[in-house]
Amino acid sequence: MDLKLIASLQQPADTKVVLLVMDGLGGLPIQTGGPTELEAANTPNLDALAALSMCGLHQPVAPGVTPGSGPAHLALFGYDPLTYQVQRGVLEALGVDFPLQRQDVAARGNFCTMDDEGRLTDRRAGRIPTEVGAKLCDLLGEIELPGVELFVWPVKDYRFLFVLRGPGLSDAVSETDPQMTGVPALEPQALKPEAAKTAELVQLFLEKAQAVLKDHHPANAMVLRGFAQTPDWPTFTEVYGMRAAAIALYPMYRGVAKLVGMEVLDVHGDLEDEFALLEQAWADYDFFFVHIKPTDSSGEDGAFDRKVGIIERVDALLPRLLALDPDVVVVTGDHSTPAALKSHSWHPVPAMLYAKTGRRDSVTRFGETACLSGGLGPHLPGCELLPLALAHAQRMKKFGA
Amino acid sequence: MDLKLIASLQQPADTKVVLLVMDGLGGLPIQTGGPTELEAANTPNLDALAALSMCGLHQPVAPGVTPGSGPAHLALFGYDPLTYQVQRGVLEALGVDFPLQRQDVAARGNFCTMDDEGRLTDRRAGRIPTEVGAKLCDLLGEIELPGVELFVWPVKDYRFLFVLRGPGLSDAVSETDPQMTGVPALEPQALKPEAAKTAELVQLFLEKAQAVLKDHHPANAMVLRGFAQTPDWPTFTEVYGMRAAAIALYPMYRGVAKLVGMEVLDVHGDLEDEFALLEQAWADYDFFFVHIKPTDSSGEDGAFDRKVGIIERVDALLPRLLALDPDVVVVTGDHSTPAALKSHSWHPVPAMLYAKTGRRDSVTRFGETACLSGGLGPHLPGCELLPLALAHAQRMKKFGA
Repeated sequence: MDLKLIASLQQPADTKVVLLVMDGLGGLPIQTGGPTELEAANTPNLDALAALSMCGLHQPVAPGVTPGSGPAHLALFGYDPLTYQVQRGVLEALGVDFPLQRQDVAARGNFCTMDDEGRLTDRRAGRIPTEVGAKLCDLLGEIELPGVELFVWPVKDYRFLFVLRGPGLSDAVSETDPQMTGVPALEPQALKPEAAKTAELVQLFLEKAQAVLKDHHPANAMVLRGFAQTPDWPTFTEVYGMRAAAIALYPMYRGVAKLVGMEVLDVHGDLEDEFALLEQAWADYDFFFVHIKPTDSSGEDGAFDRKVGIIERVDALLPRLLALDPDVVVVTGDHSTPAALKSHSWHPVPAMLYAKTGRRDSVTRFGETACLSGGLGPHLPGCELLPLALAHAQRMKKFGA
Repeated sequence: MDLKLIASLQQPADTKVVLLVMDGLGGLPIQTGGPTELEAANTPNLDALAALSMCGLHQPVAPGVTPGSGPAHLALFGYDPLTYQVQRGVLEALGVDFPLQRQDVAARGNFCTMDDEGRLTDRRAGRIPTEVGAKLCDLLGEIELPGVELFVWPVKDYRFLFVLRGPGLSDAVSETDPQMTGVPALEPQALKPEAAKTAELVQLFLEKAQAVLKDHHPANAMVLRGFAQTPDWPTFTEVYGMRAAAIALYPMYRGVAKLVGMEVLDVHGDLEDEFALLEQAWADYDFFFVHIKPTDSSGEDGAFDRKVGIIERVDALLPRLLALDPDVVVVTGDHSTPAALKSHSWHPVPAMLYAKTGRRDSVTRFGETACLSGGLGPHLPGCELLPLALAHAQRMKKFGA
């Protein structure tokens, strides 16, 4: 879908839309012929809603493509992830809840090991623990550069986030990671004339950083990758005309919601707290993105039964959402995370679209196999779900006369 | 589908194709869990044909997009309505059966109310009745302009059609509607150098029209919108190689058929007369577009039972069509017009493709829910139906060796 087309058709309406995302919802059987996690779960409320809905499976990015969390969520927000690509530096910033500003230049950093001749011998610095990396980040954060602020935040193990803030910066700077060992790190180059100043500042930072790191073997060097600025995309409200709120406990998902301009609500605790916040904020927004993380984490851990349990907890909370009398509800995942694979996967994701103005199909059970025969089809492009939700909320006017 | 690709593959064949369009066919239940209009109708003939056909639902424009009549029909004719966009002036001309010629410039006019200072106070002139508008159009039609003919035809209420005919005209002229009240109408501007003459002629017309209208409060002014010329698209016969005839009782549909170069047959009366004409003209064409209007009108009126009755009348007429022994029959709507919504809607439209060379699916009932499990899928792009029909008529040759 072309976001400009949608934006040109949006019209106001007094309707509310909820997008309930169980991260990594899609699964696989752990025994041949057995149920998936969702099929094994006892989900009377999801099944009852499925019976009133159009069901199907969506494909977040493209056939066979396993999505990362960023692209998968952009698809659910209606942004085709092949068109709207987030660069690595920005993704790292989202992942650690860094308050990225419009002109900031962010990059992903890796601590490395360097030999006496300046050649890289380990591009991951022996996978130093996060605490060690965090201390080095503190030291690097004290470096001063002329006319700009800098931030160095730990991510995990040998990985960190590097951000420059100031006027006139550009992300058109080449990476310093040579992608191999036995050679020195590369020098940052301006890829466009307007990036000359940024490249010089990065070079100066690298020189000062080298002086700090030289005695911290195995983390005695670094490389920087994926210089990026916040993309200048049409915002969620510009496209859909809805006041949108995000309810998510994890930084990455708050970050992606913020990236498209949603308002991110403050929430801590557990699933129940997310639903309580939904109830509290109900009057103030038209659209709610509610993100459930532990379906994905349990899938990543290979914990089939734990994932089943999370799905059942969400099922038990669903009546609280429905009691708010939403006009449109989409329940789905951002991608599949089968416990059997212990990772994200390319499998299409079960989805249902309930709407007061909607049709139904014959699906009465929310599960991978049942959804195959649903009216949304077996591989709906993920980015079509939200335009469909918008239409069912009667927030799109007629195209042509 | 790329029309150039289709055109490059067309080959002659001694086969006949019928596209039977029940306007606004798709519907919704009026009671929770109840049938749609089509499902409520008793349609033994449509059901029997469905059992011999591939069924499904098509999406005329894009997911969630509610189509206007023009774009919806272009899709059924195989012209992707996002690529082939008709401008307002041309649409108005089609809607009143104006015999638009290739170089004519058409615009939609609105009568308005203007105060003593020349500011618009009502952009719809108090919604004057059509008869009043028609008399004003007669007066305006007498205006003379140097070197061109002009036509002013009533449309409805305060709306009219304005057409300039003559050599060297261009539609690159800006609208005079300021889209708000409290300000004067805008002056027409040439948006390209070659439109200078047209803009001057429009300006001259507006001055003369003002002298005519000044004593006709509340319709004492006007604005002109959507200047447009007939688009230079490949014709139906160029693309598909079929001699095509349109049988339609309403101007808009005759107009869209004419726009793609179909021959529009002369028909008056009711549905039965359309089928009688189909029989009479059977020997003379390869392709027939038969348009049934009152399914849409009854949907727009919220008249569920009336829509059911119209569908049953079409069902009863279907054997006359089948008795002609067509090689391919497509039965569908151009969009949905659920009585429950009293308007066009975005819901996919039931469709069946019967062909002597076709496959069947397991659908034996022509209805929204049954068609979900059909071989055409639950959201086939509308503009793919006609290429499929062409192929089943054995009028497309092999691609590549």
